[in-house]
Amino acid sequence: MPPSGGKRDWILEIAAEEFGRGGYEDTKWSQIAAAVGVGPTALYHYFASKQHCLFVIMERTVEASRLRFVRIVGRNAGFADALVAALYDAYALDDREVLRYRLLTAEIGLLATPRALRSEEEARQAARQRIHALELAWGTFLARGMQQGVLPEGDIRMLTSAILGLNTSVWHWYRPGGPLALSAVADLYVSRTLGMVGLSPELAVRPSAGRTQSA
Amino acid sequence: MPPSGGKRDWILEIAAEEFGRGGYEDTKWSQIAAAVGVGPTALYHYFASKQHCLFVIMERTVEASRLRFVRIVGRNAGFADALVAALYDAYALDDREVLRYRLLTAEIGLLATPRALRSEEEARQAARQRIHALELAWGTFLARGMQQGVLPEGDIRMLTSAILGLNTSVWHWYRPGGPLALSAVADLYVSRTLGMVGLSPELAVRPSAGRTQSA
Repeated sequence: MPPSGGKRDWILEIAAEEFGRGGYEDTKWSQIAAAVGVGPTALYHYFASKQHCLFVIMERTVEASRLRFVRIVGRNAGFADALVAALYDAYALDDREVLRYRLLTAEIGLLATPRALRSEEEARQAARQRIHALELAWGTFLARGMQQGVLPEGDIRMLTSAILGLNTSVWHWYRPGGPLALSAVADLYVSRTLGMVGLSPELAVRPSAGRTQSA
Repeated sequence: MPPSGGKRDWILEIAAEEFGRGGYEDTKWSQIAAAVGVGPTALYHYFASKQHCLFVIMERTVEASRLRFVRIVGRNAGFADALVAALYDAYALDDREVLRYRLLTAEIGLLATPRALRSEEEARQAARQRIHALELAWGTFLARGMQQGVLPEGDIRMLTSAILGLNTSVWHWYRPGGPLALSAVADLYVSRTLGMVGLSPELAVRPSAGRTQSA
């Protein structure tokens, strides 16, 4: 647990919203401090820099996504059912969560470059490890489908990248409150993803026991 | 033509390489000036800012991609042949071009936010217009395939986004000189894209008259 965990979590919430709305680069550290209701210096008690804060938000966003994936895949015995449920779940997001994925997708390139500042570098590596853990979870799951003969054979790492890449590409253009409902996006993208991995797009039927869709 | 077009083009070349290699945010304007062999002030004769320069690089990268797409689609009479050729062409890139797409993909989020500086804003809008033109070209092409009954019906805008999203997701992780040859990535991604749009992945046969693959 970080010192004063509650306040730190709260700052992360506010920072994620500010970054998600105004864009990471255009959001000043002082704006976040103002939104939190403290001075910029007080924020440094919790994060060494704006980038440190961003990396922690990214780590948490990816880890939340991985936990959801593992839970859903674990409670569906059949591979195809599990895949459909996991794919739909990736779009079962409220507006706040969409902003967070949009931030992650927009700034993920920053994770490629090592940082000189120790806390930034540690947070960067932690976020990268969470991404690798998510990819590993997906890869393990896809391997199961191939072993069972349900999923056509293929390069697992590239197939994982293709599935995650197709999903995250949505957060580049989808805007909450825009003309398209997220549920319509989900229907199309889930069926297209099934076609991509070599299964029937007809399998794309929203699981009834899933989370409530926001749009 | 911009004033002193030759020198401006040359600065764009060098800047694209520096940004692509070191990352946009971590590359200083003074580094580009040093690579060009002038002082930072002299660079401002050509670009109002680092961001202005980035937006012009993005605009040119997207427009080059659109021109290639239009040319390839125009010289293949059959829809499926044209689609396969266009998809393969999107991976027929040399290392320099890969760096440019990597830069475009990593920084495309910056195009979402209006800029206060006039030349930055003009370049931002020009880059966005080129992206819309590329999406329109793809959409028109996909509509042709649907009209001909070759491509299963579907939402054209979302299908365009899915195709482009899947393609550009590669530039987030692919590294020239890494363990994977770009030709292997192309084979997998082209066949998967065909499955995604509802065509047979077996159609993924590299066109012999295509550009030479770099890897």
